[in-house]
Amino acid sequence: MLNVAIIGASGYTGAELARILCNHPNVRLTAATSRQYAGQPLAQVFPNLRRKTDLICENFTTEELCARADLFFTAVPHKTAMDIVPDLLSAGKKVVDLSADFRLRDVAVYEEWYQKHSAVELLKEAVYGLPELYREQIRTSRLIANPGCYPTSIILALAPLLKAGAIDPRSIIADSKSGTSGAGRVAQVGSLYCEVADGFRAYKVGGTHRHLPEIEQEINTFLQEPVHISFTPHLLPISRGILSTLYAQLKPEFNHADINLLYEKMYAQEPFVRILPENNFPATQYVRGSNFCDIGFKIDSRTGRIIIVSTIDNIVKGAAGQAVQNMNLMCGFTETAGLETAPFFP
Amino acid sequence: MLNVAIIGASGYTGAELARILCNHPNVRLTAATSRQYAGQPLAQVFPNLRRKTDLICENFTTEELCARADLFFTAVPHKTAMDIVPDLLSAGKKVVDLSADFRLRDVAVYEEWYQKHSAVELLKEAVYGLPELYREQIRTSRLIANPGCYPTSIILALAPLLKAGAIDPRSIIADSKSGTSGAGRVAQVGSLYCEVADGFRAYKVGGTHRHLPEIEQEINTFLQEPVHISFTPHLLPISRGILSTLYAQLKPEFNHADINLLYEKMYAQEPFVRILPENNFPATQYVRGSNFCDIGFKIDSRTGRIIIVSTIDNIVKGAAGQAVQNMNLMCGFTETAGLETAPFFP
Amino acid sequence: MLNVAIIGASGYTGAELARILCNHPNVRLTAATSRQYAGQPLAQVFPNLRRKTDLICENFTTEELCARADLFFTAVPHKTAMDIVPDLLSAGKKVVDLSADFRLRDVAVYEEWYQKHSAVELLKEAVYGLPELYREQIRTSRLIANPGCYPTSIILALAPLLKAGAIDPRSIIADSKSGTSGAGRVAQVGSLYCEVADGFRAYKVGGTHRHLPEIEQEINTFLQEPVHISFTPHLLPISRGILSTLYAQLKPEFNHADINLLYEKMYAQEPFVRILPENNFPATQYVRGSNFCDIGFKIDSRTGRIIIVSTIDNIVKGAAGQAVQNMNLMCGFTETAGLETAPFFP
Amino acid sequence: MLNVAIIGASGYTGAELARILCNHPNVRLTAATSRQYAGQPLAQVFPNLRRKTDLICENFTTEELCARADLFFTAVPHKTAMDIVPDLLSAGKKVVDLSADFRLRDVAVYEEWYQKHSAVELLKEAVYGLPELYREQIRTSRLIANPGCYPTSIILALAPLLKAGAIDPRSIIADSKSGTSGAGRVAQVGSLYCEVADGFRAYKVGGTHRHLPEIEQEINTFLQEPVHISFTPHLLPISRGILSTLYAQLKPEFNHADINLLYEKMYAQEPFVRILPENNFPATQYVRGSNFCDIGFKIDSRTGRIIIVSTIDNIVKGAAGQAVQNMNLMCGFTETAGLETAPFFP
Repeated sequence: MLNVAIIGASGYTGAELARILCNHPNVRLTAATSRQYAGQPLAQVFPNLRRKTDLICENFTTEELCARADLFFTAVPHKTAMDIVPDLLSAGKKVVDLSADFRLRDVAVYEEWYQKHSAVELLKEAVYGLPELYREQIRTSRLIANPGCYPTSIILALAPLLKAGAIDPRSIIADSKSGTSGAGRVAQVGSLYCEVADGFRAYKVGGTHRHLPEIEQEINTFLQEPVHISFTPHLLPISRGILSTLYAQLKPEFNHADINLLYEKMYAQEPFVRILPENNFPATQYVRGSNFCDIGFKIDSRTGRIIIVSTIDNIVKGAAGQAVQNMNLMCGFTETAGLETAPFFP
Repeated sequence: MLNVAIIGASGYTGAELARILCNHPNVRLTAATSRQYAGQPLAQVFPNLRRKTDLICENFTTEELCARADLFFTAVPHKTAMDIVPDLLSAGKKVVDLSADFRLRDVAVYEEWYQKHSAVELLKEAVYGLPELYREQIRTSRLIANPGCYPTSIILALAPLLKAGAIDPRSIIADSKSGTSGAGRVAQVGSLYCEVADGFRAYKVGGTHRHLPEIEQEINTFLQEPVHISFTPHLLPISRGILSTLYAQLKPEFNHADINLLYEKMYAQEPFVRILPENNFPATQYVRGSNFCDIGFKIDSRTGRIIIVSTIDNIVKGAAGQAVQNMNLMCGFTETAGLETAPFFP
Repeated sequence: MLNVAIIGASGYTGAELARILCNHPNVRLTAATSRQYAGQPLAQVFPNLRRKTDLICENFTTEELCARADLFFTAVPHKTAMDIVPDLLSAGKKVVDLSADFRLRDVAVYEEWYQKHSAVELLKEAVYGLPELYREQIRTSRLIANPGCYPTSIILALAPLLKAGAIDPRSIIADSKSGTSGAGRVAQVGSLYCEVADGFRAYKVGGTHRHLPEIEQEINTFLQEPVHISFTPHLLPISRGILSTLYAQLKPEFNHADINLLYEKMYAQEPFVRILPENNFPATQYVRGSNFCDIGFKIDSRTGRIIIVSTIDNIVKGAAGQAVQNMNLMCGFTETAGLETAPFFP
Repeated sequence: MLNVAIIGASGYTGAELARILCNHPNVRLTAATSRQYAGQPLAQVFPNLRRKTDLICENFTTEELCARADLFFTAVPHKTAMDIVPDLLSAGKKVVDLSADFRLRDVAVYEEWYQKHSAVELLKEAVYGLPELYREQIRTSRLIANPGCYPTSIILALAPLLKAGAIDPRSIIADSKSGTSGAGRVAQVGSLYCEVADGFRAYKVGGTHRHLPEIEQEINTFLQEPVHISFTPHLLPISRGILSTLYAQLKPEFNHADINLLYEKMYAQEPFVRILPENNFPATQYVRGSNFCDIGFKIDSRTGRIIIVSTIDNIVKGAAGQAVQNMNLMCGFTETAGLETAPFFP
C-alpha cells in the first residue's frame, strides 16, 4: 500500500480525489490539508465521505507532509502549487499537480497568461498528464501536470484528426460547456444556485480563457506551424460534466469510415475513451461519475466540416480521475485501479 | 376588443399564448382547441391559469371557430397547420401560424425537409414574422409565418453583420442550445426529467435539423450567392431559453466600434432587442418570461473571428410572444401590448 | 404617480420589488439603495431589468431619501431596519418593512429570538401585513410589517380552520419546503449551485427557525390559550416557491364539504387566494412569478387528520408581491395593481 | 461466480442493478430481459453502460431464463411479478423481487390496495428484505420481497424508537419527498422535465399511496395493537433521493442521549446506516449513488415531539442496492460486495 496525500482537500477536486482514493486497492490516504477547515474531519466537510475516511483536515508543514506520504496530489490554485511542489520533489516524493503551474512548457506563455513563474526549471521535466498521448513518459515521471478539464475534452477529440492531417487546424472552433463544479467550491455570488439554475451563459468569450494556451500547445505538437483556435466556454446548470462541440474543415479525401478508423486506431485499446457508433452522440449524463471520455462525430457534406462532440465528467477525467490514472501509471498499478465504477444514470 | 382563438392550446406554446393573451389590453380570448383535453377547462390542463381564464378546451369545427374569433393563432404541428389555415383565410380571418408550414418560400425546400405541401399558393403570400426585418409587410398581412425559435435567435444576431457585408457568410457556425420546452409537451422518454436533468447533449448534429433551411433562407436574403452554414442544436436542462453562440470570419476593416454601430443602427429603436455593452454577454435567465432578444459580441483578433452570443426565451420571443407582437402589428395595436412584463430573475 | 424607493435593492427581494414596480401603473420608482453596488446601474446588477429601469444604486442618507420618495420598501436585514424606519416615519413617510423587526408584537419574544429592540414604541403601531387577515388596518397604517415567507404560506392555510375551531391547535405540524432564493443573494458555500442542486435537506429542525414565533403569534390570535406548534423548514433545489404541508387533528364533526365552505367563506372574494377543487393539490410551479397562494386539502379518515397543502412564490406573495399589495391598500390603489401577471409555466 | 439475471432491465431500477452487478466481484450478469427493447444492447438503452456490459436485451421464456442464471432480480411491475416468480422458484432458483407482490403478509391487505393475488402460498414464505430487521431470515430464504423506497426510509428511522416504546405510535406522521426516478422510466406528461423541474408538489395526499400498508405492516410488528399513521409523498425536482421527515410524540422519560443510544445500539454495526452527530441532519446529496441510509434527529421540548430525518438514494438503498445486499446475504457473499462506492458529491 502506497501512502498518498491530498494537498488542498476542501475543494470539489480534493473531495473527489478522497472519494476515489478511499476505495483504491493500492493506496492508503494518510493526509488531507486544508487551511480553512484545519482540525475538522474531512467527512464533516464532505458528509458523503462519512464512514469512508477518518482523516482530519490539517494545515501541515511540508516536512510533516513528507513524513506521511510518498505521493502527493496538489489540488491547490496556481501560484500556490509552484510554491509547494519543488520542496516535495526535493524530498524525493512524486507529485501529480492539478493546478495550471506545470502545464505550459513555454515559460513566456505561462507568464503571459498567469504570472511570474518561480520554478521554471521544473517546466522541462513536468509531463503533461494525458495518458492517451503521453503514457510512456508518465510512467517514469516524478512530476505530472494534470491537464485542465476543457483541454482534456478538446484534445482527446482532436488528436486523431490532427495526427492524420485530416482537418485544417486553422478552422478549429471549440464551443465548450461546463458544469458548475468547474468554478470551484468558492463563496461567490456568480456560483449561487439562484444565479446558475434554470439558466445558461457564455463567459470569457473571444479567446480569453486561460485554458486556451494549454489547448493550443497540445494542438500545435501535431503541426509544423502553430495555429490559434477559437474557444468559447459556457456555464451549464449541472454540477458535473463538460461537453465540447468541435468544428473543423475536413480534408475532402476523408469519409466517415476513414475518420472512424483514425479514432479506432488511436483509442480502441484505451480503457477510458469510448468512440460512439455512427449517429450516436455523447451526453454528459452518460459519463457522470466516471473516468470515461465519450466521442461521437458527423461529417456535414453541405459545408465540408466535421463536427465532433466529446464529453467527460469534469471532476473525474477532467481532474481527480485523470490524476489517479496518472498515479496508477507512475506507480505501476493497474491503470484502471480505483476507476472502474460505471457512470451513474440517472 | 378583438376576439382571438388558439388552435392547439394544450402544448407549451399554446399555454404561453393563453398566459399572455389573458392579460392583453386589446383582445379577448374566446376559444382554445384541444383534441386531447376537449371538455376540460384550460385552467385544469394548466393550473397556473386558474382565475385567469374560464375557457373550456374544445374540439371545434372550423366553422364554429370562425364564429368565435377574428384572429387565430395556430399552434399545431406542421402538416396540421396547412390543413386548417386556408379555410380560416377564406373565411376572412387573420392567422398567425406558429408551425413551419408557411416559413419556407421555396416549396421545393419545404418538401425536401418536410413533406408534400398542400397549400402552395399561400407560400407567396405568407410573411415571415420577424418584425425586426419585416415589420411593414407584417402590418398589412393576413397570414404570418411565425419564425422558429432557433432561427429567431440566430437571424437577429447575424442580420446587421450580413446587411453590412461585415462577415464571410460561408464561415458562419451557429452552436445553439435550447431549453426542454422546445421539445413540446409530448409524452416521450427522451424528455423525461431523469433523462434531461443534470445533463447536456447535442442532437441533430451535422446539419440535419429542420430549422436549418429556415435559417439559411433568411441569411441568403442578404447575399448575392446562397450559402450553407453549420448549425448544431443542443438540449439544455432548463425549461425556457435559447442561447446561440455564433462564429464568423470578420472582414479586417471592421473593429469593435464599427460593429457596435451596425447593431445600434439596426436595433436601437427596437422595443425587444437589447444590445449589451462591451464585454457583457447574455444569459438565458435574464430574458426568461419576456419577449427580449439580448445580443453581445466580441472580436477575437487572434483568429480574426467575431463571436456573437444571443439569447431569447424560446416560448416567448421564440414562439408565443413573437406571435403576439405580430398580432399587435397586424391589428394596429401598440407593438408591445401584453408584452411589457420584465424578465423574471431568479 | 407616487414616488417610491427601495432601501436594499441588491437582494432577490429588492430585485423583485424593482421588477414589479417598474410596471406598476400608479408609482414611479425613484431611488434604489445598495452599499455594495453604489454607483452601478440597477440593471447592471440585475441584467433582466435592462430597458426597464435607469436607476443607479446609491448609498443615500435618510435625508436624501426622504427628498426622493413618499413610500419606502425596506428590504434590509433585521436590525438594520429598525435603525432606519423611525427616521422615515418621523419625516412623514409610509413604510413597508420586509424585515422581521416589526412583525412580533411582544418585544420580549422579539428579543428572545433576535436581539435588543431599539424602536419598541413602533411595535404597537405596526400592522402585520397579511391583507387577508388585516386588510382594514393596513389601509390606514403608515408602517407595515410585511410577513415572512413561511408564515404567509402557513397562516393563510390554517386561518379558516382556526377561526372555526375545526382543528386541535396543539396537533399542528407544519412541514415546509422553500426554494433557495429564500437564503438571499449572499455569497456563502451553502447556497452554491453544487451544494443545492439535485439535493434536498432539512434545516433548523426542532423548532429553532426564527419564523416560528411569528407563525405562533398569528395562530394564537385565534385561540384562548396559546400553543406551540412543530415547524420544520427544508431547502428545495428550485429558485422560487414554498410549499407547506400541514397536519392537524380534525374535530370529528367536520367533513370535506364543511371545510370547503370555511375556505370559500374566507377566501372566495380574495384576489390572490385560490382554493383548489377536491383531490387537486397545489404545486410551486403553478404560482411561480405570481402573488397567488394556492390551497388544497384532504381529510384522512383513517387517522382523523386533515392535511392541507399550500404554495406561494416566496419572493412574490412571500415578500415583494405582498409588499406591493400592502402598498396598494395603504395608498388606495386597486389592490391587484402591478400584480396581474399570470404565473408562468413551465 | 454466480450467474444472475435481471427481469425487466429497461427501467431505472433495472439499469441500476446492471450498473452495480457489472462491477460485483462474485457474480456474472448473464441475462437482461426487456419486451420493449428486445434485440438491443443494454448499453444502447443505457449508454452509461457502454464498455461495462455486452448483454443484449431479450424477451426470454422462463425456461430459457432458468438455463442462464441461478438468481433472478425481478424488476417488473406488480402483478407481472407474481406471474413469473412461482415458476422461477419451482425451477429451484432464488429470487429477489423488487415489485410489491410479496411485501404484504396479509393477502386481504394486498387485495385491498392492489388486486387479486395469484400466488398466495408464497406470501408466507417471502421474507421482507430489510436486512437491518430480517438479516437472518434473508440468509436462508429463496424469495425476498425487496422493500419499497419510501418504506425503507421510514422504517429504518422509526424501528429503534418503536422497539423501545419511546414514541406514541398513533402520533406518527411521515412527510416524505422523493426524486423523480421513483416515477419510473415511463413516457408520461407528469414526469416530463418541464413539468417537474423548478417545481415541487404533494401527491397521493391523505393516506392513499400504496406504500402505506407496507409501512404500517412493519410498524405494527413492534406493537401490541395496530395503528394507522399519516404519510404524504411529494415529488422533488431531483433524479435520485428520498428524504423523510418523521414526527412523533416522545415519551417524556427519553432525552437526547437515550435516543442516541437506541440508534447506536441498533445500527452501530450496520454497514449501511449512518447515525449523524447531534444537530447534523441528512441531505439526499450525501447518499447519492450509495447504499447508505443517513439518520439524524432532534427533540423539540416545546412540543414534546421528536423529529427524525432520514435519507436514502431511492434507486440504491431504496431498490437496486438493497436488492444486491439481499443477494449477498442469500448467497453468503460479503454483505457489502459491489456496494462500496462512496456517495458522489456534488
